[in-house]
This record gives sequence, structure tokens and C-alpha cells, in this order.
Amino acid sequence: MTPTITAFENSPDRGKGLARDMRVRWALEEVGEPYEVRLLSFAAMKEPAHLALHPFGQIPTYEEDGLALFETGAIVFHIAERHAGLLPDERHARARAIAWMFAALNTVEPPIFDRSIAMIVERDKPWQAERQPMLDDRVRQRLGELSARLGDADWLDGAFSAGDLLMVTVLMRAKGSGMLDDYPNLSAYVARAEARPAFQRAFAAQLAVFTGGVQAG
Amino acid sequence: MTPTITAFENSPDRGKGLARDMRVRWALEEVGEPYEVRLLSFAAMKEPAHLALHPFGQIPTYEEDGLALFETGAIVFHIAERHAGLLPDERHARARAIAWMFAALNTVEPPIFDRSIAMIVERDKPWQAERQPMLDDRVRQRLGELSARLGDADWLDGAFSAGDLLMVTVLMRAKGSGMLDDYPNLSAYVARAEARPAFQRAFAAQLAVFTGGVQAG
Repeated sequence: MTPTITAFENSPDRGKGLARDMRVRWALEEVGEPYEVRLLSFAAMKEPAHLALHPFGQIPTYEEDGLALFETGAIVFHIAERHAGLLPDERHARARAIAWMFAALNTVEPPIFDRSIAMIVERDKPWQAERQPMLDDRVRQRLGELSARLGDADWLDGAFSAGDLLMVTVLMRAKGSGMLDDYPNLSAYVARAEARPAFQRAFAAQLAVFTGGVQAG
Repeated sequence: MTPTITAFENSPDRGKGLARDMRVRWALEEVGEPYEVRLLSFAAMKEPAHLALHPFGQIPTYEEDGLALFETGAIVFHIAERHAGLLPDERHARARAIAWMFAALNTVEPPIFDRSIAMIVERDKPWQAERQPMLDDRVRQRLGELSARLGDADWLDGAFSAGDLLMVTVLMRAKGSGMLDDYPNLSAYVARAEARPAFQRAFAAQLAVFTGGVQAG
């Protein structure tokens, strides 16, 4: 049964790959699984029908054969567990790839997300100029640590994994800040991921929502 | 082989269960697996030997039989996968429990962590009073959504799972704010978890670091 995911009818980034459905689309493209997309307005995301699928009223969700999932980390993991290509077979390597999935979402994403939200919500506040260096430093601390660990490797731990997939989508949120440019190996890491055919198919699919290729269901 | 975890030699909370080793200790106690603890100073956490285990220089880590893991979500999942008691056997229920693990760490924890950090780091800043309601609202939004989903159930989805374990440790960080008191079902949920014998053993073990029961290795 073809899974159905949900995505923004009007993504705030207008299809630049920053909405979280990008993670799920990319994972599905990596493993070659077709999927359907149901587009939602911001109002629909807070209605009971969607809250039944996603307790926090967000996108994406994932529905397949009686199973309803939310949280991109969990959806990507579910896809990775059921298909080859996103998690190593070897037991220890698999556990380490899962550690990078959680690291992307629980350690690297929060300061990047915080900074980007503050720059929107608190842009006109009198304290923003003084707080900005602190927000930047928090992002730089994580980018510096990640850069040191990646070194000159192609991926975080051996072959490309779901850990890299999530980490790259998190780093994509920092690209607009210019901060990623200070870490050439991280910039190259993101570029290497974006060059993957599966990434490009997923990116094109979510961009098409804005360029007229997809109609709201 | 008995796993070894790392923990703070001097936890900022002085053993009140808020340091992240609590999550791993609790999971190990739930499944009945003995473990060793190696205590680390803040300086040691940033040294190369520890950074080799944990790229972000934090605690806890988990070492066992040639495997080194970081990130509490990944460590708890590793424990849950290898023992009965923390993840349902049924395929769909298992995927949903994993969704709650990610939800705890990627959706509920960030605003709670943000608020607690701002109250320490920005306590004396002139803007703190004006920012506080915004920080509170972000926490309340998530608590309200979680409370609505939990309803009058004992646990988030059927039997107690690793998803509940992580969610409760995240909510414990909000207890001090008093905000949890506005959601009686969430307060009862945390109390229900804290009454579990495995929680109590884990709590006592991390408190003993401060009351003299454990020496730094």
C-alpha cells in the first residue's frame, strides 16, 4: 500500500526544502518507495482530524496500512528499518547511525531552529542586536564540534545513512545565515548530499507544490 | 559484558534527576541490566578522550563490547531494542512508541530547555521580563497539546514504553516552573512514572553521587 504523507499547502519557505516533509520525501526517494501527498492549510493542521494524526498539529505525518506516524525522526526511522539503504546492517554501525539521527534532531537542530525563529519573531525587538551574538555562538559551537568530528570524511560514520539525511536537513536551515561557510567541510557535506539523485527528486517534488505541479487534495 | 555509562561528577542539579544520565540509568533499571558509571568533570568532558566518545562533549555516553554510543535517545533505543519491556512487540505499536521518543526530544524538550536556560543565562538581562511570557507560552503550547492527547490514559500509547520514559524526563525539567501544575493529567503522568521501582532505583543511584555513595573513577 502506497504511504501518504502530509505537507504544507503553503510552506513558509515556498519550496526551498526547509519544510520537514523534505526529510520524509528524501528518505522515500532514497529507498525507492512511491508515496502520495496530502496538502494541508495552516488552519487544517489544527483541526481535530489532523490532531488525531499529529498531536502537535504539524506536518509531516505518515499513513500506511493502518499505521499513522508523526515526527520526522520516527518516520525516517520507520522507512529505514523496512528498506535497505538508510541504515547499515552491522549491529554496531546501525546503532551509531541511529545516534546521529537523534544528534541531528536533539543536539544540532535546537540552536539552529532557535536562531532562525528569533530572527523572525524578535526581529524588531530592542534586545535582538544584543542577543544575536549569543544565538550565533550557540550555533557555531555545534557546527564546530560537528565539523571536527566529520573531518575529511564523506559522511558521519561510514556510508550515507539516515543520520546523514537528518543532519543535512538540519544544516540546510543554517545555510541562509552564512555561518555554514565558515566550515568548508560541512558546506561540502551538505553539497554532497544535495547532489544525490534522491535528494534532487524530493526537492523537485516539494518545490512543485509552489510552481504548479501539485494540487491540494 | 556490563555496559559503562558516563555521568557528571558534579551535576548542576545536585542529583535531582535532571541530568541526562537519569534517562539511561532508568532504562537500564527497567530492563534489569546492571551497569558501571564513570564520573567526569566538566573539564574532562571537553578533552579528546571524551570527545572521541561524544562529539559534542556531553554526558551520558554508553560503552559496551566495542560499541560506543552518545545521545540519550539512541542509547535508550539501543537498550529497548535488546531487552523486553520498553518497546511493544506489535509492529505498529512499536513504531508509535518510537514516534513518542522523538516527540519528547525534538518537539517537547526544546521549548522547556530554552526556557530553563534563559532563566539562568539571561536572568539579569533587561529584556528577560518581557521575553518570559513568550518562553512560557511556547512551553504551555506543547504541554497543552500533550495533555489533550494523553487524556485520562496512564501512558501515551498503551503500555509504558521508552516513549513515556523520555517524555517524563523531559517533563521533569518543567516541574520546577510550576507550569506542570496547570495540567493535572500531566502531573499525574509524571508522578505515575516516578513511582515505578526502576525509576526510584535510578534516581537513588544518581543522587548517591552527591550524598557520598559513589566515588569518581
